[in-house]
Amino acid sequence: MSAPSRARAELACPKEFLRLAGRLADAAGLIIRRYFRTKLKVVGKADASPVTIADRRAEAAMRAVVKRAFPAHGILGEEYGPERTGAEYVWVLDPIDGTKSFISGMPQFGTLIALLRRGTPILGVIDQPVLRERWVGAAGRPSTFRGKPISTRACKSVGDATMYSTSPTMFGGRNAKPYENLRRAVRLSRFGGDCYAYGQLASGNIDLVVEAGLKPYDYLAQVPIIAGAGGAITDWRGEPLGLDSDGRVCACGDRKLHKRVLRMLAG
Amino acid sequence: MSAPSRARAELACPKEFLRLAGRLADAAGLIIRRYFRTKLKVVGKADASPVTIADRRAEAAMRAVVKRAFPAHGILGEEYGPERTGAEYVWVLDPIDGTKSFISGMPQFGTLIALLRRGTPILGVIDQPVLRERWVGAAGRPSTFRGKPISTRACKSVGDATMYSTSPTMFGGRNAKPYENLRRAVRLSRFGGDCYAYGQLASGNIDLVVEAGLKPYDYLAQVPIIAGAGGAITDWRGEPLGLDSDGRVCACGDRKLHKRVLRMLAG
Repeated sequence: MSAPSRARAELACPKEFLRLAGRLADAAGLIIRRYFRTKLKVVGKADASPVTIADRRAEAAMRAVVKRAFPAHGILGEEYGPERTGAEYVWVLDPIDGTKSFISGMPQFGTLIALLRRGTPILGVIDQPVLRERWVGAAGRPSTFRGKPISTRACKSVGDATMYSTSPTMFGGRNAKPYENLRRAVRLSRFGGDCYAYGQLASGNIDLVVEAGLKPYDYLAQVPIIAGAGGAITDWRGEPLGLDSDGRVCACGDRKLHKRVLRMLAG
Repeated sequence: MSAPSRARAELACPKEFLRLAGRLADAAGLIIRRYFRTKLKVVGKADASPVTIADRRAEAAMRAVVKRAFPAHGILGEEYGPERTGAEYVWVLDPIDGTKSFISGMPQFGTLIALLRRGTPILGVIDQPVLRERWVGAAGRPSTFRGKPISTRACKSVGDATMYSTSPTMFGGRNAKPYENLRRAVRLSRFGGDCYAYGQLASGNIDLVVEAGLKPYDYLAQVPIIAGAGGAITDWRGEPLGLDSDGRVCACGDRKLHKRVLRMLAG
């Protein structure tokens, strides 16, 4: 084996992890489909975000699958506490990213699954269980949508770009002005995407997703998916996304445009 | 036949019109599904809104079906000119409401079909051709989603309400302040719904849709659907929606709450 292909092989995400990620998404989807568009009690949390029974049960189901398959792996989820996060491999789980869409009957939510190796995301899944749409990205492999390879699209200038952000209210304080400048410069800016917008970016249907105030389980799954589809995803300073990022995310289908957008966000 | 049931029978939308509306939605859907998430040229219009080939072809197909079935009926569509709009029955067609979602790969768009009798909407369809979701409302009949009766949900106070609006940028001038007051008062406000949000309101998943700057083909189909599901939909002054409305729409699943929201929008 040549040196470069050995390096690739070392970097590539093992197939057994890919299979497990699929099983996690299947387990979460089974539960989530049962609760979508049914009348259910919204359980309050300290931060008052709407959290559903489906959310908790789906995460518990995914945790059980990880523990049975790889008891030494760590787990970080939105709903329950961290476990073994010092382990070489850590699964980062968000059973329902976009709970506000979920409780409104809107299909723009999804299950996010990321696998970190020593802090670096090497595997990511965005799964929309109601529409049966799944994006998968893994180090050393092309990203896929419904099992077929996908790629981001080229976009020459900010003025040609279609941009999504989950909500205009996520850009407060120091983030408001750079975001507003960008919003005015793009061809089309839209709200309401959650994780689903990153999927459309990976599939080449939109050009930019810019957000702020996110938690690691909101963005880590997207990293291998967008990288493996030819795009770029970093924080607003261009740094790789990890557990310690500041929650500001800039994803772009066109890697050259990504650099230009970062300059605009830097002010 | 007693006087009240005769009155109901006269008001009720004839079944032949219901069947035709279904055929129109089928014809549009066949075309629209073919173009969704494919690379296509966006044809510019004078108002610079993105209009797709699918939009034009779907409207042409629907117009042909109406003309064959009821040559005396009028037609008002987004893409082509008005025809016989002085007729007793006029079909109002928007092949793709939510073209911005459509071109972004997002499923929150739909085909809108309304039938007016002497200016009053007596039949409405919201059809999501990719998800195969269809809402139908007709005078004198309960509204349906995928063929099953639906009803809006009760919502006691503005502070309990989930509200959707297509975009925060639709509220300019005199509309900005009353909308912003309402947005701050509701439990949850979200953007990006287009016609799909009205469907979720009719299905009892959300409570409010408040918009401005709409054209008749953007809102007339929703009137019989929301009325027949137990909700209320008027302009911001509480007047029935018609061809001459000012484009400001307030839809509410709870009829009592609707009156309170109108008072807030009046300032």
